[in-house]
Amino acid sequence: MTEQDSTEPTTGNVSRRRLLGVAGAGALAGGAAIAGWQVGHGDYEEPQPTTSLAYDFHGEHQAGIVTPSQDRLHFASFDVTTDSSDDLIALLKAWTEAAAAMTAGKTVGAGQVANYDSPPLDTGEALGLPASGLTLTFGFGPTLFEKDGKDRFGLNKRRPKALKRLPHFPADNLDPNRTDGDLCVQACANDPQVAVHAIRNLARIGFGTVAVRWNQLGFGRTSSTSTTQATPRNLMGFKDGTANLKAEDSAEIEKFVWVDPADDAGADWLAGGSYLVARRIKIHIEPWDRTSLNEQENLIGRDRAHGAPLSGGTEFTELDLKIKGTTGPLIPMDAHVRLAHPTQNNGTRLLRRGYNFTDGTDALGRLDAGLFFIAYVRDPDKHYIPMQNQLSSKDGLMEYLQHTGSGLWAVPPGVKKGEYVGQALFS
Amino acid sequence: MTEQDSTEPTTGNVSRRRLLGVAGAGALAGGAAIAGWQVGHGDYEEPQPTTSLAYDFHGEHQAGIVTPSQDRLHFASFDVTTDSSDDLIALLKAWTEAAAAMTAGKTVGAGQVANYDSPPLDTGEALGLPASGLTLTFGFGPTLFEKDGKDRFGLNKRRPKALKRLPHFPADNLDPNRTDGDLCVQACANDPQVAVHAIRNLARIGFGTVAVRWNQLGFGRTSSTSTTQATPRNLMGFKDGTANLKAEDSAEIEKFVWVDPADDAGADWLAGGSYLVARRIKIHIEPWDRTSLNEQENLIGRDRAHGAPLSGGTEFTELDLKIKGTTGPLIPMDAHVRLAHPTQNNGTRLLRRGYNFTDGTDALGRLDAGLFFIAYVRDPDKHYIPMQNQLSSKDGLMEYLQHTGSGLWAVPPGVKKGEYVGQALFS
Repeated sequence: MTEQDSTEPTTGNVSRRRLLGVAGAGALAGGAAIAGWQVGHGDYEEPQPTTSLAYDFHGEHQAGIVTPSQDRLHFASFDVTTDSSDDLIALLKAWTEAAAAMTAGKTVGAGQVANYDSPPLDTGEALGLPASGLTLTFGFGPTLFEKDGKDRFGLNKRRPKALKRLPHFPADNLDPNRTDGDLCVQACANDPQVAVHAIRNLARIGFGTVAVRWNQLGFGRTSSTSTTQATPRNLMGFKDGTANLKAEDSAEIEKFVWVDPADDAGADWLAGGSYLVARRIKIHIEPWDRTSLNEQENLIGRDRAHGAPLSGGTEFTELDLKIKGTTGPLIPMDAHVRLAHPTQNNGTRLLRRGYNFTDGTDALGRLDAGLFFIAYVRDPDKHYIPMQNQLSSKDGLMEYLQHTGSGLWAVPPGVKKGEYVGQALFS
Repeated sequence: MTEQDSTEPTTGNVSRRRLLGVAGAGALAGGAAIAGWQVGHGDYEEPQPTTSLAYDFHGEHQAGIVTPSQDRLHFASFDVTTDSSDDLIALLKAWTEAAAAMTAGKTVGAGQVANYDSPPLDTGEALGLPASGLTLTFGFGPTLFEKDGKDRFGLNKRRPKALKRLPHFPADNLDPNRTDGDLCVQACANDPQVAVHAIRNLARIGFGTVAVRWNQLGFGRTSSTSTTQATPRNLMGFKDGTANLKAEDSAEIEKFVWVDPADDAGADWLAGGSYLVARRIKIHIEPWDRTSLNEQENLIGRDRAHGAPLSGGTEFTELDLKIKGTTGPLIPMDAHVRLAHPTQNNGTRLLRRGYNFTDGTDALGRLDAGLFFIAYVRDPDKHYIPMQNQLSSKDGLMEYLQHTGSGLWAVPPGVKKGEYVGQALFS
């Protein structure tokens, strides 16, 4: 995929799916390009991960927001360790250059003459791997503007009104070591080695200017951001993101994702950008796994096998929140899909692109696993905080969830060639 | 891939590579099945992960040993929490049944009538995903036979001589929470969600009989186990496993991987099995990244770009350990490849199938990342312990490594239909 068509959906998948559509999976065993293809568990064939895509780093908006969500995530939060505005700008320039190279499948410092007696310019573990759909999306946290009452880089007068620490939500149990940060980078790719390589090299380039505050790996996407993608499943075993905003919903993407300076004249530098909300949501896996299917479906409000609403139909049938059964509404009053529905949230729709994670086991041998929630919103005060307050206080699912990490970052608009990420903030 | 040809290499990859070979990468942009295909960073095109394979769980040997190494790992160590031999056997039977289903891309309990008022028999997050080349490989640790001086299940008389806790190696710094365990399961798949699903369901099935002691996710394979696979790179940026034993080296696989009862008459139940050595090797990433390319290559003994030995040639050229340059041997005396070479280890060759990992950052903001080493050996006393003693004491690389986890398990032979894993030990 070249720079010109980087907004096109994943052509590799589409082709593969078209082939299946034409010939039928069973008939394909002899086809050379697709030998070994076989129908799996259930009701649809998941597209094979495509590792052959390259998305342009430059554009009107940063890539990694409405880009069809890739399979793997490495998210990192950084603290800036210098007081020098010049050093911060130099870092953003170096990160921009490295990001443009890596997202194109090139090494950091490609084209520069390597010095055999110096450390390599690139750490090397992605040598030979294709770009794998890598996107790198950068965000600026509230503490970049003001920390401990100090206007660190003379930027505070340009801080957007909505850019402040997320409030405490009911039942939050946040680990400070998984929360906030001056800068963030979301690396998404179809090959985790490519995503890990990218974050590692950005951290290496930033040595002396930034330090990693925390990071999170995600192994499976939990939302689709394009109508060309099948709906994936979260670790509760349910399809997740059926009603997610998709790249193809252009009018609603304008309305709910991109920052409009009309909202906040002081934040003109953020026009065409967005806000990234991150929430590390631990799932109490073991109790969930001992809950009846009936209870699970009532907590979600959809059937598990196909993702259809309990009010009837198939996966993409609109919810009927009014229809009643013998014991009350078919979609219970505390069902997750009801409380997250636009009609219960002033019409708000979210663009989510979260990931399943597992970070091993805790001291009691329980799986430390869950959903790393990421959403891109135009205005967190309108489009995220009220909804999360409602979910945290009323959602029946909360019995099985614990929010253990959190952060909010302003995501500058896309980078023009020759510029650096966030340049308008510094000029 | 059907049951009959489960030992064949990954046909999807081969086909893809053949196509590239015929047409050349540049000419392929218009081909429907491979649209979006693009040449990446460097000197070879990594095959796309194939998610469409299914390997038979049954066979002469357990799958997941000489199977072409899949892209992702979820490794789990379990402690048995019961004293009942019957419960242990019941668990092994249930695990066998679940493993046969999951490796075929089916759900746990497929075919049984689901009870809407009971917890689902399968946790569901792999519904709709193909088998993705899943293999599940089971091992029995020394503590299953004897723990704190107690013969827990009446098995100690059948404990193989070689099955004992690995010795302390120089510079070991083992975390007890990442070391040993009564049972282990290695789940490998091309989709991490499939591997995580498998371990989670085995843990769920084992509730009350076993508890997870520790586990490890790996995101990128660091060795090839088939000549059909390209050599991957570790997090030091170097190709890893160039000289690894491959499935196709059948005479040496017989010699160095499968247990022969002639070695140990008491261990007849282990004939056709193997021993799994696991070592969690943390890499001190930041110091390594500040080391000159020259120093890095001398520590490894190969060039970074192509993996060719410093004595000359290309990746698969045999090492010349004698040839000298102006300052000594071209492959230094403390180079990793020299110390690991068969000529320095009584002719021993290893079948490794390790994985790159990263588990976030430590308290100082340093990447907690490295290589989760897995090897399958016929006799750890001969084929692993002497080599590791040599490496731990002499390998120049050790300055950048720390062994933080460890384990040894006896891996029973393959399971016949109608039997359960390790059955010969209990009969």
